[in-house]
This record gives sequence, structure tokens and C-alpha cells, in this order.
Amino acid sequence: MKTIAEYSADVESALRSIEYPSGNLASLYAPIEYALYAGGKRIRPVLTLMGADAFGDDAEKAMKAALGIETFHNFTLLHDDVMDKSEMRRGRPTVHTRYDENSAILSGDTMLTLATKYVSEVEDDKLRKVLDTFNTMALRVYEGQRLDMDFENADHISLESYLEMIEGKTGSLLGAAVKIGAIIGGASEKDAELMYDYGVMTGLAFQIQDDWLDTFGDATTFGKPIGGDINNAKKTYLYVAAMAEGGQNVEALRSAYQIPAGEVRVKAVTRIFEKLGMNEKCRKAVGHYSAKALKALNATSLSEEKKETFKKLAEKLIGRRK
Amino acid sequence: MKTIAEYSADVESALRSIEYPSGNLASLYAPIEYALYAGGKRIRPVLTLMGADAFGDDAEKAMKAALGIETFHNFTLLHDDVMDKSEMRRGRPTVHTRYDENSAILSGDTMLTLATKYVSEVEDDKLRKVLDTFNTMALRVYEGQRLDMDFENADHISLESYLEMIEGKTGSLLGAAVKIGAIIGGASEKDAELMYDYGVMTGLAFQIQDDWLDTFGDATTFGKPIGGDINNAKKTYLYVAAMAEGGQNVEALRSAYQIPAGEVRVKAVTRIFEKLGMNEKCRKAVGHYSAKALKALNATSLSEEKKETFKKLAEKLIGRRK
Repeated sequence: MKTIAEYSADVESALRSIEYPSGNLASLYAPIEYALYAGGKRIRPVLTLMGADAFGDDAEKAMKAALGIETFHNFTLLHDDVMDKSEMRRGRPTVHTRYDENSAILSGDTMLTLATKYVSEVEDDKLRKVLDTFNTMALRVYEGQRLDMDFENADHISLESYLEMIEGKTGSLLGAAVKIGAIIGGASEKDAELMYDYGVMTGLAFQIQDDWLDTFGDATTFGKPIGGDINNAKKTYLYVAAMAEGGQNVEALRSAYQIPAGEVRVKAVTRIFEKLGMNEKCRKAVGHYSAKALKALNATSLSEEKKETFKKLAEKLIGRRK
Repeated sequence: MKTIAEYSADVESALRSIEYPSGNLASLYAPIEYALYAGGKRIRPVLTLMGADAFGDDAEKAMKAALGIETFHNFTLLHDDVMDKSEMRRGRPTVHTRYDENSAILSGDTMLTLATKYVSEVEDDKLRKVLDTFNTMALRVYEGQRLDMDFENADHISLESYLEMIEGKTGSLLGAAVKIGAIIGGASEKDAELMYDYGVMTGLAFQIQDDWLDTFGDATTFGKPIGGDINNAKKTYLYVAAMAEGGQNVEALRSAYQIPAGEVRVKAVTRIFEKLGMNEKCRKAVGHYSAKALKALNATSLSEEKKETFKKLAEKLIGRRK
């Protein structure tokens, strides 16, 4: 198997070699190129290539499906940014800011169909399984996004629904990305499922870690200002778990969130999170889901050497301690 | 074969028997049910059933694909209504008016994936062809919608681009609907292509007729007030063809469109259209594309009796003279 950096470079160059229609259709396809050329770690398509390479010694065979996964991921970003009214992403204006909302909606739709098309460019005997995995995943992602939207106005959120939300929004795509690669590589049904679990659990650990970093991370390595979620009153793992403690804390937290967005609010909320032991609880949850990911990976028929590459990827994703 | 009314009733009852997830996911799926239960002629899924019945004597086999076609059509309506800021459709508030814009975007995305999923529920040896037909059609529809959006601010539109736009937005879906049915029914490649042409050409004739009705139709049978397109300065067949005449007419038309929306503008524009012989030109174009549809249909290997049902459907769609 190659290194993660090598797979990532392969994805990047394949992404940039796709040719989109121009002429009078440039207004439909230019926003797609703009979105796909924004860079990023390309973790999801890398997982697809790794799955195919690990089980079939042929990453190239899964390249088109990998591009489909990355195109799908970026389609969700286009539409999410419209829904959240986010103006910036990866240091650049979002598509609807750079173009307009209608372009983001319509070019996003186009990306979903293109993604489905790319993912379907597999051998005939793999098509049904790959397509079912992809469509099932897509529905989970929308369901996760819907729960996330509904949380905004929800008074009470159980830790269970929070986990259902991030499993949909984040976990299922990582799971499907690696599972589709595994199917293309010729993995057994059992191995493909185990790789799906590896991906989902890695996604859960990653998301909870991301929530943790927002409060307890280091601004310089996190890449975003600390406390952004607190200022936006986002329903993160920390928030949901702290609220679930019940008692006086609920009132204390509610009051802290009444403070106008800014440093004072961030400090007040962080203090309550600390008092409730959320720092440790969060790290424990990350460890719990990382261990589950590892357990699934270890149960596959892959060689130790191949498992090692997947372990490295999970560490790279989750291991960001600051 | 059954009658069009019977196929339509079959579609309606199958649509209403789909069960969507409820509970905490109702907010994602309720807008989908709301959209799909709005009624309508169900022409597109009827075409799919007819295609399967004509070539394979089994309409039921294509029911899931037919529901996919109808779900796709309604997905485009959800997103188009957001983009056009349309508040009413079929006498009811549009999805984004009844719920909100974010719901229309996200539930629309969900409908596109559901549509792809339904359309894929065909026998393994048909899957590749059906899916390719569906994805290619979807891209044509987005391209048509993009052209339509770009026309709004375009100074000059050629009749050729206008036809490209309606072929994408309207023709390709009718074509793909019947072609997918034909493939499921086991039609030869040649017959499937001919049926696609029949559908596309019927769609073009239908759309031009619809443009004609807006100016020269009868409000009571048209179902919408006459002159709506003129008041919205829509780039219809009449407008584009009249502008293409060149000379003084261009200036006269531009002035007429400067009149504030209302009866005076409608009358002024209609007078110019009449002077330029647009009434006849339009009817001639409808006749031209209807004849092309018929020619494609006649070239298929279908029996005269079966052709008759498709002729009836085209007449039903296009034959609205008032």
C-alpha cells in the first residue's frame, strides 16, 4: 500500500483532470470546479482508494468511485453552507457567497448526480452493492443534517440523538467511502461490513474530538478560533453531555449562554464544562469510539501491515490533541 | 395496454403506499409526502409504465422506476420553486412556503437520492442502462434550468438556445421516462432510442404549446391567468422568435415590456406578437415537433394498437388548443 500522502496526491491530480462542459454551460460547472479545487485533506476518497488497494491490490480501479465520494462530500458542503448561511470555508468565500444561492443549489444538485455517476463506474458485478451502499449513506447524511437543524431549536437533546446525528452526518460517509473501496477490491461481505464499522467509528471519534478541540484545543493548531461553537450556541457533544448531567448545571449553563457572544461567554461556559468533568468525559468518548474502530479493523482478514495503514489514518484524523 | 387514466390511477395509489420514516425524522420526510401528494396528471411515470407495458406486457415491473421518475420530477419542482421564489403551485403553498427554504433544499436532496434508489430497483441486467439513462437525463435537466436562469439577464437569446433549454428542462425527462420503461420491458436498443425521441419531441411540442397558451389561450381552460409570462417578462418561444425577427420589432417589443405589468402591457405585447405572425409560427412549431414525435413512434417495432396509446398521450398533452 502507498502512504496516505501519496493516495491524497493521486486524488488531487485525478480531481483536477476531470473536464467539465464549458461554453454556455460554464455557469453550471464553474461553481463545481471552484468547490472541488479548494484543497483539503481528501480523507474520504483516500479511504476509498485504500479500501480497494487493501483488498484487491489495485487502488486505481476505485479512482472514479473515490472522486464520486469527494464530489458527494462537496455537494453536501455547498448545500449546508446555503442552509447555515456560512460565508467562508477553507479561507475562501463559500460558493453561494462567490456566486449566488441559486448557483449553489443547482450546481450542488448537479454534483450529487455526478457523484452517483462516478460511483457507478465500477464493474457490472459490483454495481448493485456499490450503488446501494452509496444511496443508503446519502440518506443517512441528509437525516443527520436534518437532526442537526432540528437541534437548533430543541430544548432537550439526548446524548443518543446527538450520536445518531453525527453518525449520519459524519460517520456514515467515512464508513461508506472505505466500504465502497473494499467492495471494489473484492472484499468479502463480512470484511466490507467491518470496514464500514471502522469508518463510522473513526468518524464518531473524529467529530467528538472536533467538538472537544473547539473548547479545549489550541487556536494555532486547530485552524479556527477557539470557542466558535460556544459563541454560536452549537449543540456539541460537550453541551449535550453537560445538559444531560441535570440539576443546577442546566440552569448555570443556560445563564452562561445568555451572555453576549464573546470571550466572557466562552470563559463562563468553559468553566462549567470543566467543573462537570467534560474535558475527561469527552476524551473518554473519543477513546471509546477509536477503540471500536480498531476492534472492527482487527477483526478483518487484512494483514497486519495493511491494518497499520488504516490505523495511521485514524490516528491522523483523531490524534489532533491540540 | 390500459388506458392513460388507469395507468395514472395505478401510479397515484403506488405513490401513496410508500411509507416514509417518521419519529424524529418526520421533519425530513413530511415535506416529501406533502409534495408528492399534490396530485397532477402523473404523465411522466405513466410514460414509464406504458413503455414497460408496450414492450414487455408488464407495467407493474416498472412501477418502482416510475415512482423514481415522479419523485425526481417533484425534486426539481421543490428546488426550482426555491430558486424562482414561487409561492404557489397547483393551488397550494409551495414546500418552502409551507415549511421553509432549508427544508425544501434538504428534502429535495433526499428526493433525488430516493429517486435514484427507486429507479435502480430493476433487474440486474437492466440496471446499468436504466441508471445511465436516468443520470444523463438529470444532468440535461440541470443544464436546461441553468440556461433558463441565465436567460433572465441575457440580452440576446437565439432560438437554438431556447430549444436547447426546453429540450433539457422538459423534453429529456419525458424522453427518459418512456425510455426507462421501454428498457425494463426489454425493448431493443433501437426501439428504446426511438421512444426517447418520441418523448423528447412530445416535450418540445408541449412546452411551445404551453408558451402559446399563455398568450393566445383561454383563461378558463388554461388553468392560469393569460399573459402571466408577458407580465413576468419570461423568455418564451414567442418572445425569442419575435426578437429573432430583428428590425423595428425589437425596439417595439422592448418598449412594450417597459409598460408596467398589467393588462395594458399584455395587450401591447400580444399585438406585436400577432403582427409578427407569432400565433401561426408557434402553432407551426408545435406541429413540427408533434410530427417528429409521431415519426419516431412509427419507426418502432410496436403494433399499431400500442402506438395508438402513445399517440393518445401526446394528443392529450399537446392537443390543448385553448
